Amino acid sequence: MKAARWYKAKDIRVEQIEEPVVTAGRVKIEVAWTGICGSDLHEYIAGPIFVPVDAPHPVSKDIAPIVMGHEFSGTVVEVGEGVTTVKRGDQVVVEPILACGTCAACVKGKYNICKHLGFHGLSGGGGGFSEFTVVDERWVHKMPEGLSLEQGALVEPAAVALHAVRMSKLKAGDRAVVFGVGPIGLLVIEALKVAGASEIYAVELSKERGAKALELGATAVINPAEEQDVVGKIQALTNGGADVAFEVTGVPIVLQQAIDSTSFEGETIIVSIWEKDAAIQPNNIVLSERSVKGIIAYRDIFPAVMHLMTQGYFPAEKLVTKRIALDDVVTEGFETLVNDKDQIKILVQSK
Amino acid sequence: MKAARWYKAKDIRVEQIEEPVVTAGRVKIEVAWTGICGSDLHEYIAGPIFVPVDAPHPVSKDIAPIVMGHEFSGTVVEVGEGVTTVKRGDQVVVEPILACGTCAACVKGKYNICKHLGFHGLSGGGGGFSEFTVVDERWVHKMPEGLSLEQGALVEPAAVALHAVRMSKLKAGDRAVVFGVGPIGLLVIEALKVAGASEIYAVELSKERGAKALELGATAVINPAEEQDVVGKIQALTNGGADVAFEVTGVPIVLQQAIDSTSFEGETIIVSIWEKDAAIQPNNIVLSERSVKGIIAYRDIFPAVMHLMTQGYFPAEKLVTKRIALDDVVTEGFETLVNDKDQIKILVQSK
Repeated sequence: MKAARWYKAKDIRVEQIEEPVVTAGRVKIEVAWTGICGSDLHEYIAGPIFVPVDAPHPVSKDIAPIVMGHEFSGTVVEVGEGVTTVKRGDQVVVEPILACGTCAACVKGKYNICKHLGFHGLSGGGGGFSEFTVVDERWVHKMPEGLSLEQGALVEPAAVALHAVRMSKLKAGDRAVVFGVGPIGLLVIEALKVAGASEIYAVELSKERGAKALELGATAVINPAEEQDVVGKIQALTNGGADVAFEVTGVPIVLQQAIDSTSFEGETIIVSIWEKDAAIQPNNIVLSERSVKGIIAYRDIFPAVMHLMTQGYFPAEKLVTKRIALDDVVTEGFETLVNDKDQIKILVQSK
Repeated sequence: MKAARWYKAKDIRVEQIEEPVVTAGRVKIEVAWTGICGSDLHEYIAGPIFVPVDAPHPVSKDIAPIVMGHEFSGTVVEVGEGVTTVKRGDQVVVEPILACGTCAACVKGKYNICKHLGFHGLSGGGGGFSEFTVVDERWVHKMPEGLSLEQGALVEPAAVALHAVRMSKLKAGDRAVVFGVGPIGLLVIEALKVAGASEIYAVELSKERGAKALELGATAVINPAEEQDVVGKIQALTNGGADVAFEVTGVPIVLQQAIDSTSFEGETIIVSIWEKDAAIQPNNIVLSERSVKGIIAYRDIFPAVMHLMTQGYFPAEKLVTKRIALDDVVTEGFETLVNDKDQIKILVQSK
C-alpha cells in the first residue's frame, strides 16, 4: 500500500510499504482523511522530536522510517478476534495514543501523561498518511450519525483544545485570551465558546489567522505588529486582566506576556511544545498569586468532542483550507504549510 | 523615642524620633519583640525593594527614611476613639499590611494581592524596630492566653508559611519537598506538619539549617553540595516525585529543580521574592501536566497561626537563635545575619 514515511528532517517519502495485518483485539481501518498537524511540521522541519530514531519506541517497538499522520478518520475494514465495539463498515476516528499501560500515570488512567507517551503516526506502528492502518480497539471511536469523515479528521486537534480548556480554571462567564491562533489556537477559541467564556481575545501576527479568529467568534484580535503593548492592551480591554490565558505559540517571550495578561489569581495554560527554555520573572507570578499549568494531548474526551461537533462546534468548513492527495503530501502539504501562513488546516485524502 | 530607620542600603540608623500619636480607629502598641526578616536583610543589602524612596507609598504616604521591622508583638498602651476589639494592656500581634482598600483585589477581600501592597515596617508608617508604633485596629490581633511575646514575634513569618501550604494543592498524606530552609522554609516544614504531609524533604546547602529541618521533623535533608543529582534523589526517595514542591530560595536554577522534583500533576509553590528572571523549560511543565503557583504574604490567617502555636507548632524555642537589644540591631542583627548562616531567627527587644 501507499504511505508517507519520515526518514529524517526534510525527508518524508511517499512509497509502497506492506499493508498491516489485523490481529486479536485490533482494528484495521481504511483511512479517509488525515490532517497535517503542527507536530508533523516540526518533525518535517526540525525532527526528530517524537519520532524514534536511536532506539525503538518502547510501546510501538518501531523505529524510523515511520508512517506519519495522527489526525485521521476512516472506515473499519476488518476486526481482530474479540473486538466488540466496532465492526466492518463503521466510520471511526482514532485516538492516536501510544501509552505503556504500566507506569504510575497509566495505572491511574492518565494515559496522556504516560512516561513513554507516543503517538500513532509520530512514534511508529503506522499512521494516517497511508491507505490502511491497524490500531488497538481501545483507541477506536465510532463516529456519531451525521458527522462527515472530513470533520472526523479534526477530532484529534479539537480534543487537544477541549482538554486544555477543561484543565483550566475557566468557568462559564470568564474572560480568556489565546496567544497564537494557528489551528490549535483557533480550536481553543471554539472550546472556549463551548465552555461559555464571555470574552475571548486572540493575539496573532498573521492577519489571515486573526480574521479567522474573528470569524469563529473572538471578541477582538490584537496584532503585536500593530500594538506594541500587547499586555497593556489586554489589561485595558479586560479592565484588569483575563481569567485564563492560553499559550499556543511556543515562543519564549510570549510566555511572560501570557502570564502578565491575566488578572490577579489568573491562570496561564501552556498548550505548546517547546524547543528552547523560556525566561520568566517569577515575581509576576508571586505578587498576583497567579499560576501556570501545562497540558498535553487529551484523555477520555473524543466522544464528547464528536458530540459537540454534531452541534456545530469546531467546524471543518471554516477550518479546512486545502484538500490534497496523499501523493502530494510533501509538495502541496508540508511545503505549503512552511511557506503559506494563510493556511489553517490541510487535509490529506488517502485514496 | 528610639527607632531603627532605613536611609539607604547599608545605612540603617538607630536614632531618636517623635513618638507616634494614636488617632480614631487606631491602636498604639509598646513593641516587645521584633524579628529580623529576610526581606529586612534584602533592604539592608540591596534595597530599596519595598521601601518607598522616589515617591511616598500610596497607602502609608511615607517615604524613606522609614522605621523597619514588621514581625512584632507588643502590648496595647492606648486605643483611639471607636476601637473595640482590643484595650490597654492586651498582648497583641500586628498583621503589618498596607493595602489600599479600593483596588479590585482589595474589594474582593484579597488584601495580600492589593496592587499597592506594602508592609508596616517596610513601606512606611512606623514599624517594630522602635519603642512604640500605631496601626489601624483592623490589623491588630489579640494573642491567646499562654502564648509568649517572643512567640508572638514569629506569627508573621509563620503566617507566610501557613498561607503557602493552604494555597497549595497539598492534602493530608501527601509528600512535599522544600527548597531552602532558612526561617521561612523551616516554618513551611512546620506548616506541612500542620497540614498532615506524610513525607517532608528539605533541600539545603547549610548543614546547620539542614540539621534544624531534621530537628523539626523533616523526613530527610538533601544537601546539593553532597548530592549532585538533587532532582533524581527526590524522585527516587518519593518513587516518582513529590506532590508539592515549595521554592523558598529565589535562586533561578532552583525553580526548575523544584518543578522537576514533583510527580506528574505535581505543583510548585513559589514563596520567594526574586531579583532576577528565571529560565525554565516549559516542556517539563507540559509533558507531566504540572503547575506552578505564586503566593505572597498571607490573609485571614493570623488567629489560626496563633492557635496552632498554642498547640506547639512553629516553636520559638527551636527557631530563635539570638536575642539582641534595639541599639545593636545593625551590628548584632543585620551584620550577623549577613555573615553567619547558622543563625535562624534573631529577635530584637525594643526596651
